[in-house]
Amino acid sequence: MRNKKVLAITGIRSEYDILYPVIDALRNSGNFNVKIAVSGAHLSDWHGNTVKKIEEDGFEIADRIDCLLMTNRKTQRAKGVGLLIQALAQTVEREDPDLILFVGDREECIAATVVGNYMDVLVAHIGGGDPVYGNADDPIRFAGSKLAHIHLVTAKPYAENLKRIGEEEFRIFFVGNPAYANIANTPRVPLEDISQFLDFDISDSRYVVLLKHPLSSEKESAYEQMKVTLQATEEFAEENNIKIAGIYPNTDPGSYDILNAIEELKSDKIKFFKTLPRNIFINLMRNTMALIGNSSMGILEAPFYKLPVVNVGNRQKGRLNAGNVEFVGYDIELIKKSLHKACFDVDYRKYIAGLENPYGDEKAPEKIKDILLSINLNDSKWYVKKKLC
Amino acid sequence: MRNKKVLAITGIRSEYDILYPVIDALRNSGNFNVKIAVSGAHLSDWHGNTVKKIEEDGFEIADRIDCLLMTNRKTQRAKGVGLLIQALAQTVEREDPDLILFVGDREECIAATVVGNYMDVLVAHIGGGDPVYGNADDPIRFAGSKLAHIHLVTAKPYAENLKRIGEEEFRIFFVGNPAYANIANTPRVPLEDISQFLDFDISDSRYVVLLKHPLSSEKESAYEQMKVTLQATEEFAEENNIKIAGIYPNTDPGSYDILNAIEELKSDKIKFFKTLPRNIFINLMRNTMALIGNSSMGILEAPFYKLPVVNVGNRQKGRLNAGNVEFVGYDIELIKKSLHKACFDVDYRKYIAGLENPYGDEKAPEKIKDILLSINLNDSKWYVKKKLC
Amino acid sequence: MRNKKVLAITGIRSEYDILYPVIDALRNSGNFNVKIAVSGAHLSDWHGNTVKKIEEDGFEIADRIDCLLMTNRKTQRAKGVGLLIQALAQTVEREDPDLILFVGDREECIAATVVGNYMDVLVAHIGGGDPVYGNADDPIRFAGSKLAHIHLVTAKPYAENLKRIGEEEFRIFFVGNPAYANIANTPRVPLEDISQFLDFDISDSRYVVLLKHPLSSEKESAYEQMKVTLQATEEFAEENNIKIAGIYPNTDPGSYDILNAIEELKSDKIKFFKTLPRNIFINLMRNTMALIGNSSMGILEAPFYKLPVVNVGNRQKGRLNAGNVEFVGYDIELIKKSLHKACFDVDYRKYIAGLENPYGDEKAPEKIKDILLSINLNDSKWYVKKKLC
Amino acid sequence: MRNKKVLAITGIRSEYDILYPVIDALRNSGNFNVKIAVSGAHLSDWHGNTVKKIEEDGFEIADRIDCLLMTNRKTQRAKGVGLLIQALAQTVEREDPDLILFVGDREECIAATVVGNYMDVLVAHIGGGDPVYGNADDPIRFAGSKLAHIHLVTAKPYAENLKRIGEEEFRIFFVGNPAYANIANTPRVPLEDISQFLDFDISDSRYVVLLKHPLSSEKESAYEQMKVTLQATEEFAEENNIKIAGIYPNTDPGSYDILNAIEELKSDKIKFFKTLPRNIFINLMRNTMALIGNSSMGILEAPFYKLPVVNVGNRQKGRLNAGNVEFVGYDIELIKKSLHKACFDVDYRKYIAGLENPYGDEKAPEKIKDILLSINLNDSKWYVKKKLC
Repeated sequence: MRNKKVLAITGIRSEYDILYPVIDALRNSGNFNVKIAVSGAHLSDWHGNTVKKIEEDGFEIADRIDCLLMTNRKTQRAKGVGLLIQALAQTVEREDPDLILFVGDREECIAATVVGNYMDVLVAHIGGGDPVYGNADDPIRFAGSKLAHIHLVTAKPYAENLKRIGEEEFRIFFVGNPAYANIANTPRVPLEDISQFLDFDISDSRYVVLLKHPLSSEKESAYEQMKVTLQATEEFAEENNIKIAGIYPNTDPGSYDILNAIEELKSDKIKFFKTLPRNIFINLMRNTMALIGNSSMGILEAPFYKLPVVNVGNRQKGRLNAGNVEFVGYDIELIKKSLHKACFDVDYRKYIAGLENPYGDEKAPEKIKDILLSINLNDSKWYVKKKLC
Repeated sequence: MRNKKVLAITGIRSEYDILYPVIDALRNSGNFNVKIAVSGAHLSDWHGNTVKKIEEDGFEIADRIDCLLMTNRKTQRAKGVGLLIQALAQTVEREDPDLILFVGDREECIAATVVGNYMDVLVAHIGGGDPVYGNADDPIRFAGSKLAHIHLVTAKPYAENLKRIGEEEFRIFFVGNPAYANIANTPRVPLEDISQFLDFDISDSRYVVLLKHPLSSEKESAYEQMKVTLQATEEFAEENNIKIAGIYPNTDPGSYDILNAIEELKSDKIKFFKTLPRNIFINLMRNTMALIGNSSMGILEAPFYKLPVVNVGNRQKGRLNAGNVEFVGYDIELIKKSLHKACFDVDYRKYIAGLENPYGDEKAPEKIKDILLSINLNDSKWYVKKKLC
Repeated sequence: MRNKKVLAITGIRSEYDILYPVIDALRNSGNFNVKIAVSGAHLSDWHGNTVKKIEEDGFEIADRIDCLLMTNRKTQRAKGVGLLIQALAQTVEREDPDLILFVGDREECIAATVVGNYMDVLVAHIGGGDPVYGNADDPIRFAGSKLAHIHLVTAKPYAENLKRIGEEEFRIFFVGNPAYANIANTPRVPLEDISQFLDFDISDSRYVVLLKHPLSSEKESAYEQMKVTLQATEEFAEENNIKIAGIYPNTDPGSYDILNAIEELKSDKIKFFKTLPRNIFINLMRNTMALIGNSSMGILEAPFYKLPVVNVGNRQKGRLNAGNVEFVGYDIELIKKSLHKACFDVDYRKYIAGLENPYGDEKAPEKIKDILLSINLNDSKWYVKKKLC
Repeated sequence: MRNKKVLAITGIRSEYDILYPVIDALRNSGNFNVKIAVSGAHLSDWHGNTVKKIEEDGFEIADRIDCLLMTNRKTQRAKGVGLLIQALAQTVEREDPDLILFVGDREECIAATVVGNYMDVLVAHIGGGDPVYGNADDPIRFAGSKLAHIHLVTAKPYAENLKRIGEEEFRIFFVGNPAYANIANTPRVPLEDISQFLDFDISDSRYVVLLKHPLSSEKESAYEQMKVTLQATEEFAEENNIKIAGIYPNTDPGSYDILNAIEELKSDKIKFFKTLPRNIFINLMRNTMALIGNSSMGILEAPFYKLPVVNVGNRQKGRLNAGNVEFVGYDIELIKKSLHKACFDVDYRKYIAGLENPYGDEKAPEKIKDILLSINLNDSKWYVKKKLC
């Protein structure tokens, strides 16, 4: 049997971190030829030019697709999808893949599925069925599911959600969160080395990681929300002799305002980083006391680390919570109180350490490899959806 | 209360015929300012340059968006969607509409909903929930429904389908097929005049209308399928002294092959027309003995005319059948037999005349006008989908 | 020395016929790796889908770039250039060529030179310096020359023209018309075989070739001009027992109107062909009595065949005339008179057979190969134009 | 006579400052209807979101065209031109202007002229014929001149340059630099107020303005070149008790590296500003001791202020020098010496104050208004270039 040709699409570092262990497993199996179409924030110097990491990981890049427009207006993402679809269709025609593979709910989700649908190429989607709402990404995720041919879901309830919206059962596979393999495979780095790398001393383990993105439906408040978060975090840090390691936001509308709030920071207990090498970031997460902000990592990855999370604001609301995430509004005192509980309440931390993880374990990449291997490319059932609702 | 600003999107004549009575009702109410973004086949001389008809109907054209690429390859529609999204985002930003309105399941469906989703503009979709499958358009229709904010469905079972895929009930309205208003409002034209207009004598009412499009999943057979259909039709016409009035296909991949089959026709009993004025076409339908081919008209409009339909092949399969459509494969004898029953079996024709129409009546445009008028643009429930599955 | 990587750009059959012998010579030399970016009319079924010929010629296709929009409006070519530039930049980044190579004055001219200019890739232009005017292509040719780095001109006076507009002398090379190599290399085919292939009997050599394109500055008259040309040609054919072998026009605005005029033809002495295999076309030209229309072939290729040409209208005016082209207005009697002279005036035909050809001979491809081989890619003089006027 | 419809295109603040007095004069004359297509850096929050200033100036915005991609790769500008052409063609078709108007040599130059050429709309170009070389913009300026229909040049030698490259004399008008009107019309602001606005005390007039852009052909050295410039400037400032007011660079490739160098600055004698209100900037220039960097302002505007300029590096080389610009390489001592002469050498400053300005005076906008008013839109000589070389 000839190798299956897989074209993976990736647009941003956070999503590539989930994709990486999967395509690494595919390539290592010897049964797949993998190429990557790299787009969006990966190609932006303002976002760390993370295409370099993909090159270092040794994957062949099928095309570099520019689709991130330099504006904060609402046209940015819509036009970006248009650009991505156009260019991706050119790539897909040339590469003629058996499978298009992508993760999540961003521009790549709708672009990959639209192209696959019109060009009769099978599309495998990692991460469907997640019922989170409030961001422009969320309906995109479900629209993508109506177009994708193979659903690789990260939690069992998500599989049920996809059946509910009419997807045929034979297309749906529970695999768990692929990022866990990534984490499990990353060697441990001493905190001293990390401190040195960051030029930020956290060697005593007294630190919290901060990761906050804009919420598109609350774009106008992005600056104010970040200011409140930063003030609460800063006060907590000062009062408890804690350091805060912050990561820059994604590129969604409102991110510019968040960057402005970050620029106004003065405390030396807080330091922000543009983008971090994967091994540094994972070890940072392994050793942190807690995670604060509104990143999907709190929901999706923190359970694997047995990590308490303070989620500020509405982003991530409605998603499947392993029990480790506490939601809190934009209230300085409440944020501080919640942080205190996460960092210092022994019983609460013991409870979280004992939770069962609905997002599976580190075996997702192997499962995905087996599933994609088993797909009979000549069986028309995969291509035409005979049941749409 | 200020008028609501509506931006309607249209890409092809057949879909504009459904849109027209709706935007006509909106404008006549005095409560809406309507502009139209005209795209795709409307701007092609090869498809009758039907933008002229939109101008004659007196609507202001917000922009002419070129997105129909001159190729028969599978890239055509994918890239076309990319072009349409990019250009439409520019139009939407400038026009700043309260509502984006569109019909159906073609490129406009996914483009309008993607743009509305990322730009926070309400999108109203006419024609969701239809469970037809087999064409690239069908999953697009449902992906569009996951993104659209207001669902104006043409049959009651379709409303149920949308609830099933997780759409909130308050967003879903059964209105019926708007094209019926169009039909009802069209003055009668004597068949003699139509014969003269067409330069094709059908004044004795002994004729059948033929409308056949390619099915994207069977694109490779498009030529052969059309040849079989034409041979059956031609033989039936010769044997029963019937005329066949054919209409050119849409622009989907495979259409070029269908045009080739048409070009090889020799019989003077069959004549094909590029595009017909609406009043001519409706009167042609009013007087025809039957409809043959695989157009959605057989399912959607023929019940209003009480017209028997012979649907050749898989296109339209799975759609709600009022009872007037008989499906038949690509078999010359079976097609002829089915045509004979449709044209000459008195009991069958009486049965069809008595069927109840699940697609409603001519009141859809008025209902849509009332619904859109009632939408409170300041109520956030319309913009953010709190339930996605 | 490693091979030089050449990316050739082509958009239409007529221009590819000039490009082909050059890239064939490059590849046969063993010193170049050649890939082709195929765009525009090559990908259109309406224009013969000539990308197939490029595949048959054995070249690797770097990308298929859709940029031909299906409309007759003036937006067509402008938007097409935009599409071509965007897609070509993606191709150029991936392929990382040492040289971009193209022919002529169409969309590829401005797209290739803009991309090369901004991406610091050397661009070699075949066909600069030709002072023809009146078509939208003509200023594009000169704008392209201001951006191209290496000028391979087809006539000595053209080299002077490029110096006059400020191009540095070391960039300019007279090579002659590459199409002649193509012609010289084509085996002879008996007229009987050609007649059979065309299903059009011209075996007695009594025929004239007709090739007429729209002139963008006279787009509105395209239909009327074609009607006059066809009537004159038809009358001449009837009166002198001559056949007319016509070729379909290019895709410029107005071409649709020309096609309409062709469709109305009734005479069996005239037959039109969509696109012809190269060997058929060349043998058609070798044996024809004359060429009529306004194709650049009259100016550029007919001298090699020693062929008299009747050029109808303003297109091609101002170009270097070897002496074989007679210009005539849209006047039926004058056209017929001019055709008569071209076909039957023995002295005139002898005079034309003896003309010297300013467009060189069949050695152009070899000369271009030697020139490109000699370019030192590390010499910055090629990249930065230190003299622009 | 009806008003002429003018569509102006602008992409960046520096170029809009030249365009503004012209379109202000057109609108104030009452003989023109002016709209603006706003694109590129104007729409970027990273570049000050200067579209707001255009709105404040009271012009109607025809469209906001996103064409600035968020990357530092060489694809950025090429793809940006593609995007701009596509979108602008849509705008031009809708607005149907009599004249397209633009300034300079950036993406707008080639986009506006390509669109005008293919769509038969007259294009007026302010700023042609300038023989500067070394940047990707320079050949674009001349390519644009081969396509533009009306040349409004800012210096008499530039008019000669355009004749030399084959442009017809009747198309060429010497008008001078329109920015001077802008400067002349700006009210004086006391340095105390400016110091307060900038939060940077320069009230004693002891300051120099620094404006440094990347040079695309030396993109790789952008960071190093800026470091040298900053070190020299900083030392000069410290040694002579001078302040340095810096302005952020444009968006060309390499700009990101320049921003990195700026971020590493530590001296409190230097402060950088993203973008400044026009009246602040002009008063800053009126009072500065000198200008340093490589901005075109040194060549083009400084003579009007009678200002000595230290131009570091190759950018601007070859341009018409009024005598006020001294070129110096990336050598710290030489830069400092040159700055010292510019600021403190009394004879040198007297010499510069007495120079004649080849770029005209503040009357350019009025002259342009009269020229455009005089154009007979029905005269075909403007549309078709009968002489191209």
